[in-house]
This record gives sequence, structure tokens and C-alpha cells, in this order.
Amino acid sequence: MDTSPDSCLDTRTDPGVLRETAREPSQALDPKSPVARFGADAPLPMDSGVMLAPFQIAYQTAGRLNADRSNAVLICHALTGDQHFAHTHPVTGKPGWWETLVGPGKPVDTDRFFVVCSNVIGSCMGSTGPASLNPETGRPYGLDFPLVTIRDMVRAQAMLLDHLGIGDLFLCIGGSMGGMQVLQWAALYPERVFAAMPIATGARHSAQNIAFHEVGRQAIMADPAWADGRYLEAGTRPAKGLGVARMGAHITYLSEAALHRKFGRRFQAGSAPTFSFNADFQIESYLRHQGLSFVERFDANAYLYLTRAMDYFDLAEDHGGVLANAFRGTKTRFCAMSFTSDWLFPTADSRAIVHALNAASAPVAFVEVESDKGHDAFLLDEPAMFSAAKGFIDAAARARGL
Amino acid sequence: MDTSPDSCLDTRTDPGVLRETAREPSQALDPKSPVARFGADAPLPMDSGVMLAPFQIAYQTAGRLNADRSNAVLICHALTGDQHFAHTHPVTGKPGWWETLVGPGKPVDTDRFFVVCSNVIGSCMGSTGPASLNPETGRPYGLDFPLVTIRDMVRAQAMLLDHLGIGDLFLCIGGSMGGMQVLQWAALYPERVFAAMPIATGARHSAQNIAFHEVGRQAIMADPAWADGRYLEAGTRPAKGLGVARMGAHITYLSEAALHRKFGRRFQAGSAPTFSFNADFQIESYLRHQGLSFVERFDANAYLYLTRAMDYFDLAEDHGGVLANAFRGTKTRFCAMSFTSDWLFPTADSRAIVHALNAASAPVAFVEVESDKGHDAFLLDEPAMFSAAKGFIDAAARARGL
Repeated sequence: MDTSPDSCLDTRTDPGVLRETAREPSQALDPKSPVARFGADAPLPMDSGVMLAPFQIAYQTAGRLNADRSNAVLICHALTGDQHFAHTHPVTGKPGWWETLVGPGKPVDTDRFFVVCSNVIGSCMGSTGPASLNPETGRPYGLDFPLVTIRDMVRAQAMLLDHLGIGDLFLCIGGSMGGMQVLQWAALYPERVFAAMPIATGARHSAQNIAFHEVGRQAIMADPAWADGRYLEAGTRPAKGLGVARMGAHITYLSEAALHRKFGRRFQAGSAPTFSFNADFQIESYLRHQGLSFVERFDANAYLYLTRAMDYFDLAEDHGGVLANAFRGTKTRFCAMSFTSDWLFPTADSRAIVHALNAASAPVAFVEVESDKGHDAFLLDEPAMFSAAKGFIDAAARARGL
Repeated sequence: MDTSPDSCLDTRTDPGVLRETAREPSQALDPKSPVARFGADAPLPMDSGVMLAPFQIAYQTAGRLNADRSNAVLICHALTGDQHFAHTHPVTGKPGWWETLVGPGKPVDTDRFFVVCSNVIGSCMGSTGPASLNPETGRPYGLDFPLVTIRDMVRAQAMLLDHLGIGDLFLCIGGSMGGMQVLQWAALYPERVFAAMPIATGARHSAQNIAFHEVGRQAIMADPAWADGRYLEAGTRPAKGLGVARMGAHITYLSEAALHRKFGRRFQAGSAPTFSFNADFQIESYLRHQGLSFVERFDANAYLYLTRAMDYFDLAEDHGGVLANAFRGTKTRFCAMSFTSDWLFPTADSRAIVHALNAASAPVAFVEVESDKGHDAFLLDEPAMFSAAKGFIDAAARARGL
């Protein structure tokens, strides 16, 4: 296992990642994150049966690990998120995606906790995924990369924590696909999770959500530039297909109310329709921008793989069809959170989680936050979310003696 | 104005349509409908300022017009519908799309009423649209066809009724985009509409609905086979783009509950994931089928035009920003109908219509049908919809002396 440093443990940079940059466009997107590299002696056992080796996990941290290593927090990112939760993004230049919730004095207080966030396996910001080189062929994996599951992501994160010398987590927290990982952590490694916050998520992906993902995948695969997944070698990029996929998905992250408030039926310039297929309406222009900017920072095949991982997620199915079985005997304390206007992972999905945790006699709090911002509310400025998170985390910290 | 016959008035066929067949693939889809042809002396005045001529409207009828021509019903079809409301579809071989509601002894009783349904201007089942030949160039219009609005559709329908010798309508009825036409009829020609039933519709298209349409349009225009709208001349067809557009739209026609009931998370074959991008889930296979079959019966440019017409629709905006102004002084009696699980045109949209009608002192009934079938419920077997429609229509017929 070849390892690279974490900021609080070591400051050596890993030139291996930088070298690969020129040959792996998507991994070139992030030359800055430290990576943990795992070799043939430490393969990742995947649900598909594949033993993946070598592989690497890129990550970021904030705060300092305390002496008894009891203050570690793992943040799990969503579908198109990455490890830059509290650092300026190397591609977009934007602030970290969860600086609203995480930082000095914030609910996830980096003055008190050591916070880790890793790019999930199968993604494209430095962790091994379909854009990585397949050592057997010397070419990018493309669709030869094995299908990834939420459990595979969690197994890889556990290996990263082992590598960082972190036994158990004080807190595991994440929204959307990140929330799926939180649930999977609690089910797979209950003894390693003191407290868990699954936010705006579900214990299984619904038929409607699978349907939306399938439309996005078909949009990508319909793009001739996708080249059966071999676009990196072909020197092309399925930008249009990926853009369309992102546009469609983006609608599901918002809400009718938020779209009405932000855009309504307002026209772009002036107040009259142009009687053309130009982006007359502000909402059209906004969506096109979302599609275009996404293409700059994300790999199309990674999008296929991660949407598939979410589709496959069904924690009850993995436990004899009874969700409570996933949590029996757990000592983890939970706080589930949903948002009233989230129709991608509606409150009913969180309720199902809470019911199962109650049935498993697990300590669980449930917060439904009133918000008109839709699914993406968990990434936004939602004071009710912050205060509930702070209350839960502070109480857990006291119970943990932090 | 060159005209072709209606089944109840004449049985001559119009060879003009058949001749165009070989050169206009999409119009070749329907060689069976009678058409009304309008020449240079009877152009269609369009909202874009264009005076369209020549143009033709394809239509179908059922029942017989009575002696005093007081029993005419106009059915307005939805986005991807057509005039085959009660006849076997010439392309798909399926029953008429509204045989559930219209026919002998049905709420819209063809033993009592003379029912007309025409393909909207801009569509592709025999009425003039972007796939038609532009007489100025001898080539298909493509994007040179003028943008179409809901009001343009209604004006063309009024010209068709004039041509058929129908002064006023006993009933104007339609769902979704058809409901928009019903509202536009009542606003534009109040003296010609005795009773109106706008179903599962809105007086304006919401930001979210515009957003979904824009994704579909971008999917079509991203397809290289679309060829900037000149695919008919190029001998190509943007089948993938149009298929993706249809897949995405189709999700919005259903509901989470209906998808869960019909498909849930069931796998296609056996009960295990294949760890691939095959259509593992039944919902994926179903959606792909929807995309493929749609491409067989619809023209991609027509889809662009008709989605745009819906986006532009804002009846209040056309009347000083006050929806009630669209209906002031009307003598039309209304019955608005919505479905509880319709999230494309939710009950709130129908309520806004009803509030405006009340403010305009118009007689209006409002029925919210309990259904888990989503937007498409208006096309399906919904006994509560049938009984409410029958009650409203029978009462209107009595008031009309029918």
C-alpha cells in the first residue's frame, strides 16, 4: 500500500498523481488533494465480485485529530460533489461545498473536530474511477471499470480511515448520496460510528429517481462523442450529452416554489418572447449554464457509474427485506433530516429510515426542516438545519466526552 | 381556400395529402385524415406576426351534426396527441386516445354530439408544421416555420369550424395542452363556446415545466442527426435525442406512486443486478420503450414547436396581468378538473383558473379527482372523472335544449 500524506500528519506531495495528470484529463482536474494509494496487497473487495487493485482515494481534511483520536468526522459527498468541502475548489474556484455547515465555530466545528472527506471510488476528482488508467491495458478504464456500489464507497473510506490511523468516527454525516453512505456506514461498521446524520436521503432509490437517472445516462450514451465510453482515447468529450443530463437532474434538485421565486416566467432580455428557440426565459438560460459549467468539472463516465450506484442502493434488500435489520443492536445515535420541499428524497423516505431505527431500538432524532429550496437545501443557508445539526452534534460531543 | 371533406358531410378523399406523403415523411404518417386547406386568400394570422399561407388542418369527427348545428363538441389534443381521439391510430394501431371518455354512451356521447378533433397547427399528423414543405423554397420548413402559440392553434381551429359550417360549440374540452386551448377558446371566442372543460391544465406554464421542456429541446438539438433542423433533407432522424426528450417528459406524466406501484425496484430478469448499464430495472426498460416508440410516430421539430407553444402560454399576461380579465362578461359555463397526484399541472393551477372564473362571475364547477396516476390520469380509466364529466355535460346539454 503506497500512501500519500494527510495535511495534519505529513506535508509531502505525491508526484504520482501529478504525473498521471497529462494522461488522465479528469484526474488532472485536481492535482492538489493528497491521496492514499492501495496496491496489490490491499485490494478493494467490491460487491460485483471484483477485487480492485491498485486504487487510490483522494481526500481533504480540516482541523486536527486529538490525542486519543476520538474527534474524527467523516463527511460523505453527494453524486457530483467531491472532497473540497471546506476548501476553494481547484477547478471552479468556488468556496468549499459545505462551508455553510463546516468550519471554525460552525455546527461541524473544525476547531473541535478533525474532519475528513474523500472523493468516492468511481468518481473523478483524484480517486480511482472509469477515467483512471487500467493497469492491465494502459488505457483509461472506460466501461471496463467495475460497477460501484454505495457499500464499495464505504469500504474504500474505511480503508482510508485505517490508513489515516482513525479507528472510529465521532460523526458520519452527509446528504443525498452522502446520506446513503452514512446509512451504509452505520449498517456495515456500527462499532466505528458514534453518531450519524443522514440528510435528505433514503434507504433505497425510488423508481422515479431511477427513471430520472436513466434519462441522464441515455443522454450521455446518445452523444456520439461518448464513443462507447472511450472518449478520452478518442480525444472527444460527450459535453452535450452530459450537459443535457445535468440540466434534467438539476431540476430535480430544486423545487417548483424555488424555481418560481428565482425565475418565474421572466424573460431574459426585455419582456417579450423572441419567437425563437433562444433561451428566452431566465430559467432556460440558467439551466443551460448549469449544464455547461458541469461539463467543465465532471467526467461523463463517472456520472454513469455514480448514478448507477445510487440506483442499486437498497439497504433493506441487503438485510432480508427488513430495513430495521440493518441496524439491530446498533449503539450509534442518529439524527435524520429532511426538507419539506425536497421531492427527490421526500420526507417519507426519511420517515422510513426513522421508523426502521425505532424498530431497531436505536436512538434517533428526526428533523423535518421547513424550506422551499428543494433537495439542494442541505447545501444552502438553512438556519433551521444549522441549529438542529449543532444541537445534535454538541449533545453527541458531550456524550463522547469531547 | 381549398377544402377537403368531413366524414359526415362528404366522403371524397383528398389526394393532395397523399401526394405529399412521399416527400414529407412525418405527414406521411397519416394519409387517412380529411384535411381543410386554406390558401393565400385565407392566411392564418399568427402571434409572431406571420400570416401563414397556405396551410392545412387535418381532423377527424364522430357522430352527426344536428339540424340546427347546436351539438358540436371540439376536442383539443395534448402535446403529443393528435386527431385520432376515437379511431384506431394509423401509425400505432392503438385505439383512439380518448375512447375512455368519448364514444357511444360515453360522457362525450357520439350518439348525441358531433365531435371534432383537429391536429394542431405546428404538429405532424397532417396539419401544417415544421415538417411541411415551405412553398417558398420547396424544402421542408424546419426551423423556418414560424413559432406557434396556443392562440394560433385556436385561431386555426376556428377557421376549421367555419369551414365545417359550425358556428358555435356546445362544448370545448381537452387536457394538458388541450386544456390550454380550451381556456384560450373561452377567452378569444367566448360567444362561440357554450360549455368548457379544461382538464389537468394551467392558465400559464410554470418555470419548472418550462425547464423540463427546455431539457427535452436541448436533447433533440444535441443530436447531430438533428442537423440544425434539416434532418428531413439530410435523410437522418434525431431518434436518440427525441427518445431522450420523451423519456424525461414521460416521467413527468406519471407519479411517484404510479411508478412505485407499476415498477417499484423490480429487476427485469431474475432478481439480481447485472452490474452493468443494461436496463436492469423494469422502469428503465419501460422508459426506453417509451422513447423508442415515440420516435416512430412523432416529428422532432414538431416537438420543439409544440413545447415552445406551451411555454409561451400565459393567459393572464395577455390580459393585463389579471387572469379574470380573460373571462369578464363570459356566458360560458366551465368545469375545471385536476388530479391529486398530477405534479405537472397540480391542483393549484386549476384552483387559479377557478378563482379567476369566480372573480369574473362565470359559472364554474371544480372537480379534484383522487388518483395516484399523475398527469396522464385524464387519458386513463378514472371513473370519478367520467361521472363528473357526464354530470356536467348532461346538465349543459339540458340547458342547451339538446
